[in-house]
Formats: sequence, structure tokens, C-alpha cells
Amino acid sequence: MTIEASKSEQKAAKIRLGMVGGGQGAFIGAVHRMAARLDDHYELVAGALSSTPEKAMASGRDLGLDPARCYASFEEMADREAARPDGIEAVSIVTPNHVHFAAAKAFLERGIHVICDKPLTSNLEDAKKLKEVADKAKALFILTHNYTGYPMVRHARELVQAGELGEIRLVQMEYPQDWLSEPVEQTGAKQAVWRTDPAQSGAGGSTGDIGTHAYNLGCFISGLELDELAADVDTFVPGRRLDDNAHVMMRFRGKDGGRPAKGLLWCSQVAVGHENGLKVRVYGTKAGIEWTQADPNYLWFTRLGEPKQLITRGGAGAGAAAARVTRIPSGHPEGYLEAFATIYSEAAAAINAAKAGTLVDPSVVYPTVDDGVKGVAFVTACIESGKQNGAWVKV
Amino acid sequence: MTIEASKSEQKAAKIRLGMVGGGQGAFIGAVHRMAARLDDHYELVAGALSSTPEKAMASGRDLGLDPARCYASFEEMADREAARPDGIEAVSIVTPNHVHFAAAKAFLERGIHVICDKPLTSNLEDAKKLKEVADKAKALFILTHNYTGYPMVRHARELVQAGELGEIRLVQMEYPQDWLSEPVEQTGAKQAVWRTDPAQSGAGGSTGDIGTHAYNLGCFISGLELDELAADVDTFVPGRRLDDNAHVMMRFRGKDGGRPAKGLLWCSQVAVGHENGLKVRVYGTKAGIEWTQADPNYLWFTRLGEPKQLITRGGAGAGAAAARVTRIPSGHPEGYLEAFATIYSEAAAAINAAKAGTLVDPSVVYPTVDDGVKGVAFVTACIESGKQNGAWVKV
Amino acid sequence: MTIEASKSEQKAAKIRLGMVGGGQGAFIGAVHRMAARLDDHYELVAGALSSTPEKAMASGRDLGLDPARCYASFEEMADREAARPDGIEAVSIVTPNHVHFAAAKAFLERGIHVICDKPLTSNLEDAKKLKEVADKAKALFILTHNYTGYPMVRHARELVQAGELGEIRLVQMEYPQDWLSEPVEQTGAKQAVWRTDPAQSGAGGSTGDIGTHAYNLGCFISGLELDELAADVDTFVPGRRLDDNAHVMMRFRGKDGGRPAKGLLWCSQVAVGHENGLKVRVYGTKAGIEWTQADPNYLWFTRLGEPKQLITRGGAGAGAAAARVTRIPSGHPEGYLEAFATIYSEAAAAINAAKAGTLVDPSVVYPTVDDGVKGVAFVTACIESGKQNGAWVKV
Amino acid sequence: MTIEASKSEQKAAKIRLGMVGGGQGAFIGAVHRMAARLDDHYELVAGALSSTPEKAMASGRDLGLDPARCYASFEEMADREAARPDGIEAVSIVTPNHVHFAAAKAFLERGIHVICDKPLTSNLEDAKKLKEVADKAKALFILTHNYTGYPMVRHARELVQAGELGEIRLVQMEYPQDWLSEPVEQTGAKQAVWRTDPAQSGAGGSTGDIGTHAYNLGCFISGLELDELAADVDTFVPGRRLDDNAHVMMRFRGKDGGRPAKGLLWCSQVAVGHENGLKVRVYGTKAGIEWTQADPNYLWFTRLGEPKQLITRGGAGAGAAAARVTRIPSGHPEGYLEAFATIYSEAAAAINAAKAGTLVDPSVVYPTVDDGVKGVAFVTACIESGKQNGAWVKV
Repeated sequence: MTIEASKSEQKAAKIRLGMVGGGQGAFIGAVHRMAARLDDHYELVAGALSSTPEKAMASGRDLGLDPARCYASFEEMADREAARPDGIEAVSIVTPNHVHFAAAKAFLERGIHVICDKPLTSNLEDAKKLKEVADKAKALFILTHNYTGYPMVRHARELVQAGELGEIRLVQMEYPQDWLSEPVEQTGAKQAVWRTDPAQSGAGGSTGDIGTHAYNLGCFISGLELDELAADVDTFVPGRRLDDNAHVMMRFRGKDGGRPAKGLLWCSQVAVGHENGLKVRVYGTKAGIEWTQADPNYLWFTRLGEPKQLITRGGAGAGAAAARVTRIPSGHPEGYLEAFATIYSEAAAAINAAKAGTLVDPSVVYPTVDDGVKGVAFVTACIESGKQNGAWVKV
Repeated sequence: MTIEASKSEQKAAKIRLGMVGGGQGAFIGAVHRMAARLDDHYELVAGALSSTPEKAMASGRDLGLDPARCYASFEEMADREAARPDGIEAVSIVTPNHVHFAAAKAFLERGIHVICDKPLTSNLEDAKKLKEVADKAKALFILTHNYTGYPMVRHARELVQAGELGEIRLVQMEYPQDWLSEPVEQTGAKQAVWRTDPAQSGAGGSTGDIGTHAYNLGCFISGLELDELAADVDTFVPGRRLDDNAHVMMRFRGKDGGRPAKGLLWCSQVAVGHENGLKVRVYGTKAGIEWTQADPNYLWFTRLGEPKQLITRGGAGAGAAAARVTRIPSGHPEGYLEAFATIYSEAAAAINAAKAGTLVDPSVVYPTVDDGVKGVAFVTACIESGKQNGAWVKV
Repeated sequence: MTIEASKSEQKAAKIRLGMVGGGQGAFIGAVHRMAARLDDHYELVAGALSSTPEKAMASGRDLGLDPARCYASFEEMADREAARPDGIEAVSIVTPNHVHFAAAKAFLERGIHVICDKPLTSNLEDAKKLKEVADKAKALFILTHNYTGYPMVRHARELVQAGELGEIRLVQMEYPQDWLSEPVEQTGAKQAVWRTDPAQSGAGGSTGDIGTHAYNLGCFISGLELDELAADVDTFVPGRRLDDNAHVMMRFRGKDGGRPAKGLLWCSQVAVGHENGLKVRVYGTKAGIEWTQADPNYLWFTRLGEPKQLITRGGAGAGAAAARVTRIPSGHPEGYLEAFATIYSEAAAAINAAKAGTLVDPSVVYPTVDDGVKGVAFVTACIESGKQNGAWVKV
Repeated sequence: MTIEASKSEQKAAKIRLGMVGGGQGAFIGAVHRMAARLDDHYELVAGALSSTPEKAMASGRDLGLDPARCYASFEEMADREAARPDGIEAVSIVTPNHVHFAAAKAFLERGIHVICDKPLTSNLEDAKKLKEVADKAKALFILTHNYTGYPMVRHARELVQAGELGEIRLVQMEYPQDWLSEPVEQTGAKQAVWRTDPAQSGAGGSTGDIGTHAYNLGCFISGLELDELAADVDTFVPGRRLDDNAHVMMRFRGKDGGRPAKGLLWCSQVAVGHENGLKVRVYGTKAGIEWTQADPNYLWFTRLGEPKQLITRGGAGAGAAAARVTRIPSGHPEGYLEAFATIYSEAAAAINAAKAGTLVDPSVVYPTVDDGVKGVAFVTACIESGKQNGAWVKV
């Protein structure tokens, strides 16, 4: 461990931020707000926090927002904020999935940067349309696949990019949970209700909610592109309307003309004993790595024929990509909120460069609309393969 | 922990044992011998330790065998020992797979009990024929799926049988290794050579060598029967003649008319960083369990909505099935050889009951020829599915 | 895991905060700032960030402070801010130890709440004087023994208070590090220089820097009061001026007339392989617990004669005290900054209650000046015992 | 992992072994018998298994011993076996501590090799006398500090000897258990009764039963000699007659004129949640190591400034000293019985060399009567220091 001096904290003016969704009773909105605050690059100044006007207003008051900037709809917020000289420069979209498309479109088309929760949209058609919008927009689109912000995930990716693993052969991803082991959506629990409702979530249940995270992370670390998948998709809990477990076999395109790699993905919301058991393992011809979200400050790294190494965030063996996004010394754990905050800080770096008309530092990394399209395509392919009795489906 | 008095050690006369295979340069033969010695139920008195006569003799001499009982072939041993009044009562078959069938048949037909290494045979036809032989024989057939001898595996099974997990939904099995990450069979390494040779191993590489273990253990613990599987089977190392990685999706028959369970199995010999990473996880409607061979004295057990429990061998929470096969107090680890020895002791209990013409204690458990047929059927189905691009294959 | 709705975020006006120390090149200042921001209860508006005027000004500019409120000394800041109608309401003191006393005194006497890094002061005399000042002051004093903010530490304490451990027999504390295994202070590394300098740190090296944390945490969880200690105190690195390792035997006063408990404390800066290996274990007549800072979301809890339980932050088994300070669902790790932020939020709750003239919620917990005096008394006793060849010294 | 060919199993004739103690109801006797069998160097042929004649006979019958060689006392066995041409060549002494001295003396003086459980004797006077006897005897004396037989303990020692840790600064030992957390000796539990009885155990309770193991292991690995210690010795359970917890500060002699090293030892039988939590950590100027008995196939090894390494038994990074005593491939765990068996096999190597009049292979290592004297001196010093309120006592 080395106790280092703090990095020079940025002196750029704070980015004026709005939020869509995330009012009283929501979960992920508060996470986004903490993430936005941690590194001090944003100031929350406006919100369309709920689709219920009274709740939108009350939620804004809770957060100390100017009542004049608490809107009853994102459309109104987009219009009014775009017209203000001190209007928001960026917006966080933290609603259920089915709202993402229209909301993101509204802000992007007004030149307001969008930081959007995943999955990108509730169906592939919307995802592709959103990509078109984003590609044409004068504003950035950042998708909060927040696990890509963990320092040891960055290090894993750097090891792969540096060739330390050799040619990748296997990518094993899993994300088991147990909170939907019983039909809790029937008790009215808000988080369970919308996440198991096709109208709000789209066609994927566990595949969309957590499978996309595991898939995104496997690709982020390995640098591979999925070619096709075969999925056995289940709904174990009687009465549930979306999948709560999926087994997925994957075939990735070979890199640089090399042999295709294979993968396995398991996502589950009925695996009793797991809270948020996201784990990614990647094996190449020269080395293998393993990372687990619940213990995120560690990365197992083994070179073929050498002892296993436990690389720690901030410790010996962690490279430049991890160091960039590390806040505190090794042995003092960083967690989920810090990783989430890193996505916000990467977004801020990109937004500030855009504002300044300069190039963004090439080491800045965040998930894009393209990653979002891939995620929705993954869910779509899982559901399609599931319907076809596990046949291979191209993505 | 409680330091308990030793269990009364059995006073039955030792069983006279022969061995086929396991001569100089072998690996698993020495394991079988240690396993046979640990609980003192056997006396090794004869051997056909190698198919090379000089080596057979030298290997026997190393082990202190009477030279007159060191045979150059199992056929000779079977004939000659069957004719001796003090001839062997049981035989351990520890050769490469392709010899299992003929050797087991020779001894079974002479009323000599057979303790045979897995997989049962090198192809399904032989497996079925061996089952016929075994079913008709006046001798027992025990297959050394040694992992079933671990106390915490017994406990896991007992938990399932007692309904503690509720209805089983998921069985996740994996057995990654890395010792064949490079083409070591081309260097002449004996263990690698025969295990990658179709003529000696049969059609399965990793599927037969380790996949069968994981599959057997998943079934042993869950009590489920496989219905069909879909496999993506690979040979990553150039020039290798058998698979070195397989991804398998599984569908188990529902129990007692219940909903079918699903499973995932991964076996690999090219997963860098894994030595013998056998892990089985089973999830039901009420609880989930996890067991890892490298840390075998622990069983994770979580009831839905309760804290995770770490049950230890010999400790609080371990039940009668585990206690039966536990030798030393909790906190003092038992390992692979002890589990293997338990298979030998279970076999001894069954053989002694057979000798005495009494019923064997119903708590005695060991893998049988039926488990062996299932194992070979699993390998056969994996290979078949692999050839059909991962189509579902009934087993 | 349950994904819960966010707790209603406080709508009280933000507390105006100043900072002493924590300028460019510092470490802990940035930590305090992130901690103050996370839950949004503070606004940093003034600073005496460095004793070098230019650096103070530059550091303030980095943080976006009004230049008029960037002071060259804490005395000036205390005077000037106390005189402003919009002056700071609270101040964070994040300097080396020897400055704590005078700075805290200056603000407390002006009715400005003080949030001060540990150890309280660099010597026991100052500590006692500061207690007098704090006791008389019209402002609160909060000491950032940040580890007391971890949810599972709160849970451990709650278990003890609820009698779940029975009568406490043993408290085992350790805090090994390795960053001072070599004489890095001789290379000019700023953090190492002041932490090994008696003039800035006081008489204790490892005992003051990290031993106090371990001791504080052992007392916080166990609820015990130290009676006497015997210490073997070492400086392993040649040329170092303060201790870098200490072994301490402890005797705690019996609670409610009960038998005295015993303890063991090890702090080290030369234990190669440890980053920030803070661990506390407490054993009573009925149960034992274990908590490790590097993996802070877990608490091992074992009742005598029952299986070990792994209680997780946010998960089943975590009680009300932990839930109060938990931000995100189980399985998503919180870390060091969140625990630190909890101290800031507890302080905010107390400060807001003081501002409103209301009683603070009795569940609000933070380390006080009394804890600070105990910490300095611990260091003083260690050094004294060390000089007396490990004789028992009353604290 | 490499699956290696079995080592050539020794063809030396088996050593004729007797046993003192270990009859029905005993614990450690069965362990010794399994250990003696595993590697096939011994044949148990005689016993004085109990001091109760009927029980001695019945116990011998259980083990299949010739009734003529089941003796009612060790004196009789020593006399009669020494007189037989086929008499025992070695004897295992597995009684409570107070019998060790007289029994060992009886056999050593008759030229019969002694394998004796620890601690050496129940008091220091006997220990010194036994050393005299052993030094003069024409037979070997082996003490079963069985933990020294673990491969990763051998590797740890080899790392120290090779200078990989640099100069040793710290040796931290602990051995917590919880099985005596309540006064179970008052229920008549045999193991608890004699282990808490000064007449049978000697002056030390936890210090003698488990503290000696931790101390022996710390010295075995570090190669250091203890100079003095200061101990706080407790009996927490009311009515107990021996200590059940001790905290010990240690000072080791500097090696080769170097700086003295320091140590900390904790042994406890009332630490709820621990089964057999033996752990040894050694820190030097260049590296640190950590080994835990419950997970014995792993050794943590960290070089200053490098990532932590997890060295596995049989795996990459394990050296020659570990390989010598490794039976099966990495990833297949060996445990307590295997380590115990290694002591027996080392003893066999030494005994066979003695029989042959040849030099024993210098890599053969086992605990000797000198280690035993040190162990008893350690216990004696702990008790003495405890009585003197924790004063430093030379050993």
C-alpha cells in the first residue's frame, strides 16, 4: 500500500444536471445521485422525478430543487430546460426501461447530454432507433453499465489488451441473485413489479435486468464480439411473466483472424444464497483471470505454470488503467458507488471536453449507445433462442 | 468441534485384494492403494500391474507382492486367483478406460468383486454389456466416483433428501483444470498421452475424464435424472484428438411429477488457473448449497431469507450421513484420499455383508454400474450433441 | 437481497463547512471531502488548506472555493468566518496530529462544530485540555474514527449490546500494514515523513496511526473499558524515530461486576503482505464474531454449538443498527468512503439537531472527544509500557 | 497441476510397531494408526492399549492383534517384546501426557524406537530427564508435532531457509478452539476430563495442548529460538483447573547476530467459532507468509512490493521440500491425516536407515526430543509468567 497524495481535484465548473425518474420510492435514482456527487463534477438542478405530478414536486422538494424546475414530464423538462440560459447540460435517465427511448431522444435532440440506465431500451427496434438519434445528436450518450467502472475490471481489460492472457479461449459470466425466488411481485413490491412486467421491462426478465450486465462485462474485459448464442430460458416462479433464469452458450468471433472463443452465461433471480453474484472469468492461452463483484478490490490472475496472484486495487500489480479510477489506498475497499461514480466522472470528462471543443483524453472509457444496442440484441437473441428450444441465434 | 472417541475399528478379516494396472509410472493406482489401506479393510496380495511383463513384476516387487502372484495379464490373474483357495476376493481396476470392460467382466464372471475406476468403459456399448454382466454376477461392482465419498457431499445429499432445499430448480456443475492448456501429450507425458487418445479413453476427453465426475456428483447430490442435454464441445489445443472443453446445458426430469429442473455443466482442461476446480451448486425453492472440492470440509448452505451458513465437516450442522464417513474432528481437514478411502470402506462393508450373506447397512452408499452407464451415456450424448451443433440429445 | 426504495434524502439546508489542512499533496483531506459530499449534507465554502499561503490559495482554487475564503492559517479562518453572517458552521480538521489541538480549540471556542481526524492530539496533556474545551463549548466535537461507520461494525456492536455474545471474554484486534517496511520516510514521501516524525505525530508511530483505530474499534464493538495494558513496542526499520510495530496485552474492566475480559492488539507497519489489515474479533460465553476491514460487507457470527453464519450488509440477519447506515442492496459492496461518509452524516444529524435546538435521534452514533482522549491515553500507555520493558500500565 | 506418476513406493520390510494407549474410547490412537498405515511402512503387531486389562484386550481384539501381544501395561510390553526375536521395533505412545516419560524411557532403554505424542512430558523435569535418556539410547525418538508434516509448512520453512523472507522480524502464531467454552469436563467427556486435569496433562491446559503446537510450528518455520516470553494466562470457565486461554508476547534471539525478532502467540479453548484455528504468519524484511491449518494446501506468500501469491501444494511455486512430502496432484486436497502420516514416514526413513546402519537422507525432517523439551519449557515459562503477572521469563 502506498498512501498517495490526492489527485488534483478538477476545477472545471460543475455540470448542470437534470434527472428523469428517481423520485420517492425509487431505488436506482438515489444511486445515480450519490454517484454524481462523489467526485463533484455535477450539480443537480432540475428533475422530472415522477410521472405523478404531486410526487414529482414532493421528490424535488426532498432534494432541495427549485420548485420551478421540478417538472411533471420529461418532455416538459426537455423543452423548458433547453430554453433556459442556465438550463441543464446533461440529464440522467433512471426510469423503467420502456421510458428510456423517448426520454433519451427528447434530450439528445435538444443537445443535452444523456446518462442513461441500462438496458438501453425495452426492445431492439427502439435500441436501433436510439442509436440513430445518438449518432446524429450534438450531445453525448453514456450508458451506466456501472460495473465497468470498477478499477479491477479496468485492470482485467488492460491485461487482455496487453496480451497478457494470450489468445482468449473462454469467457464465463454469471450473475445469480435470489430476490425473486418467490412471487414477490404479487405483493406489490415496486422494484419487483416493474422488473417482471413486459410492458415496462421489455421481453427480458433476468436476461435484461442482470444478464445484460454480465454480458456487457464479459465483452468489456475480453474485447470480444458475440457471434451467436443458444439459450435455455426459464420462468421458475409460477405466474411470473418474464424469465427468471437463463443458461446461455456463446460463440464469439475470433479476434484478428484467430480461433473463435466460447462462452457461458448464467443469470438467475432464483438462485437461493446469491445476492448480486456477478462474476466474470476469462481464460486465454497464457493466463486466466477471475473477478467477483461482491469482492471487487481483488483480481485473481494466474499465468500458466506460475502461482496464482491476487492483485489488489491500489496495490502492487495494478496498472495504469486501474490507477486512473482509484481514489483511495489499497486495503481500504472501494465499492459499488465508487464504480458508479467513475462512470459519471468519465462522462464528465467527455462532456467537459465536448464543451471545450477539445479531444477527450483517450483513456476515458464509458459504455456507449453501441454497447446498449448490443445488450438489447443479446436479450432479444436469448428470448428468441429460448422460444426455438435453444437453437443458435445470431446477434 | 468435539474431540470424539474413535469409532470402533472393524475387526472383520481383511479382504484379499488384487489390482489391475497401477504399476510404475501410473498415477491413480497409488491413490487406490492408499485409499484401500487407510481404513484397514484390505490386504493387497496380487497384481497385474502392467501389460509389460517385466514392469508388472518389478512393480509387484516394489509393493512387496509375492512374485508368484504378479501376473502379466488380468486374464491370467483372474484364472489363477480364482483357482486359489486364498485367491483374491476383490480386484481394483485402475487401467486406462478401454481396458475396464474386459477386465471387469473377467473378474465378475469368476465371482470376484470389482472396484473399478471411472469412466465405466470407453464406449456406451461396452457400458451396457458390462451392466448386463454385473447384474448377473455373483459379485459386486463398485465404481470409484470418489468425490461421492466426501462427508460434506454426503451432507449435501442428505439435505436434499430431507427436503431442506424444497423442489430443486437448478444444478450447476463445473470442473475446470488447466494442465492440458498446451499440447503436453506431444511431449510424451504418460498421463496426458492416454487421456487424449481415443483408443484408450474413448470418445470423450475432458467430458469423460472430468465431466463425468461433475455430472455424477450433480446427480448424486440432487437425486435428479438427466433427460436431455445440449453441448458445445471444443478442442482448443491444436492437434489434440479429444475435447478439452465442453459447455453443456441440461434438462432434468421433474421429481414426483414436479417441474423439470435445469442444469449447466462446464468441464475444461484449458482453464488457466484451475487445478481441480470441481464445484457443485444446487438451488431449490427453499435453499441453496455450494460445495468445492479444493476446500472440501465446507458446505455453504443458505435458506431463503436467512443468513448464509458455513457447515463444516464434523461441526455443528453436519448430519448423520456426513458423520458416518468422518474420521477426525472438525477443523482438522480431511481430503481427497480420505474421500477415496470412504469408497473403499463402503465397498468393504458391502463385500463383507455379501460374504456373510447378510444385508448391508442401508446407509452404505457407493457408485454402481448403473451410475457408470449413466456416465458413459452422458459422454456419448455430449459428443453427439457437439457433432450436431449443440442440438438437444436425449440420454 | 431486497432492492429497497431509497430512504428519503434529507431536505435540511446544507451545512456550511470549512477545512483545515487537506491541500495539494495531502491524502486524508480528499477523503473527508468525498465523505462530506456523498450524502449531501455539507457544502465546502472555506479553507485553510495549507500552512503555505500560496499553496493554500492554489488548493482552494482547485476546489472552486471563493478566494476570499481561502485562508493562510486556521486562526485567520476561525476569526474571519466567525464574523461572517454566512460563515462556516462546521470545520473539518485534517492536518497532521500536532495541529489538532490548537485548531480544534480555535473553532470550538467560536461555536463552530469540529470534525477532526484522529488521533485526537499528539499528546495526552493536549487531549485532556481539548476535552475541557469541548465539554464547555457551544459546539459539537466529532472524531473521525471512520471504521465505526461500517454497517457490519454497527451490527457487531448491536449483537454485543443485545447480549447475543453473552459475557465478553476476549477482544482480539489487529491492524497490520507493510507500507513502512523500508525507510521510505528518508525518500521524502510526504505521508511517511510526518507520520514518523515525533514533532508532528506525537510519541506514537504505528500505535498512534493505526493502533488507535484498532483499539477504538475493539472498544466500540465490545462496549468494554480498558483497565491496563502491557506492550512490547518496536522500531524495526533502522533510523526510524517512532515505533513501527507493537504487541499489546490488554485487560478490560468487567462489565456489570462481571469477570474482566482480556485482549490482544497487534499493530504493525512492517508486516509484508498486509495493506490495511484491520481485523476485530470478539468472543463471549455464547457466541463469537469476526470482522475484517478489507472485506467489510461481511460479519462472521457463530453461536456456540451452531454453524458459522456469514451475515452480509443489507442481507438477512443484519439488524436495525446496520440498516440505518446502509445505502445500497446487499451484494453490492459499500466501502471505506461510505463508512467515512456515515460519520459525516451522523455528525450532520447531530449538528442539525443542535441548530434546531432539538434532541438528536438516539440512534445517531459518532466518536467523541472522550473516545479521542482514550485513544491518546492508549498510545501514551503503550509507549510507557514499552519503555518499562512491557510492564502493566493503567490507562 | 500436473498428474505425475506415483513415486516408487518403498519396498523396505514393514516396521513392526507397538502402541501404548489408544484403546477403545481414545481419539488420537486411531489417528496414529491411520497415519502409520497410509504410506505402508508399519505393521501394528502389539499393544498396551489401555491401563484396564479387559479393555486392553478388547481393544487389541478390535484391531486384530494377536491376543498374546495385547499387554496390560507398557512395562510388560517393553519387557516381553524386547525379548521376542520378532518383537516390535518401534512403539507409538499415545497416552495422556503424564505417562509419556515413563513409557518412552522403558522402550528407549530397550532399544525400541519411540514415536510419541506431544507435549513431550507433563513437566519440565521429566522432559529434561527424557532428553538424557533419548540422547543415550540406541533408538530414535520422534515427537508427533504433526503439523510440521504439512507440505506447505515445509515450503514455508524452505522459503525462510532460502532467505526469501530476508531477516525475520515477526512471528505471529495462534491456535483458537471453542470446544471447552463450557465446563464440558464436568459432564465426564473423556477427552475434556484428562486434558483439564493437572495430574494427567501437567501444568498447562490450552498452553500445553495447543499452544505447544503453535509455538513449535512458529519455530519450525522461522528457524528462530525463543529467548523470553511474557504471558497473560487465564482460566475463563469457572471450576476449570487448567488454563483455557493465553496471550503470549515473545522475543526471539537474533539470528547470525541480527536483530531479535518478536512474536505473539494466542491459544484458546474458549474462542467461540473456532474449531482448530491454527495459523502461523511470519514476516521478514523482504516478504511475508501466512498458513492456516484448516486450509492447509495453500500458502500465502508476498514479496514486498509485489502482488500476493497463493502457492498451492503440488502447484507452481511449491519447492522441493514440499514436493518430497506431497502424495497427490494439486487441487486435490491433502489433510491432517496425510500430514500426520508424513511424520510416520519420516520416522520410518530414519528407522530404516538406523536398521541398515546407513545415513538418513538429510532432507528427512521430524520433531525430536529437543523440540519436545522446548515445548515443555514454553509451557512452563507461560505458567510461570502468568503467575508473575506477565513478567518476562527466560526459556
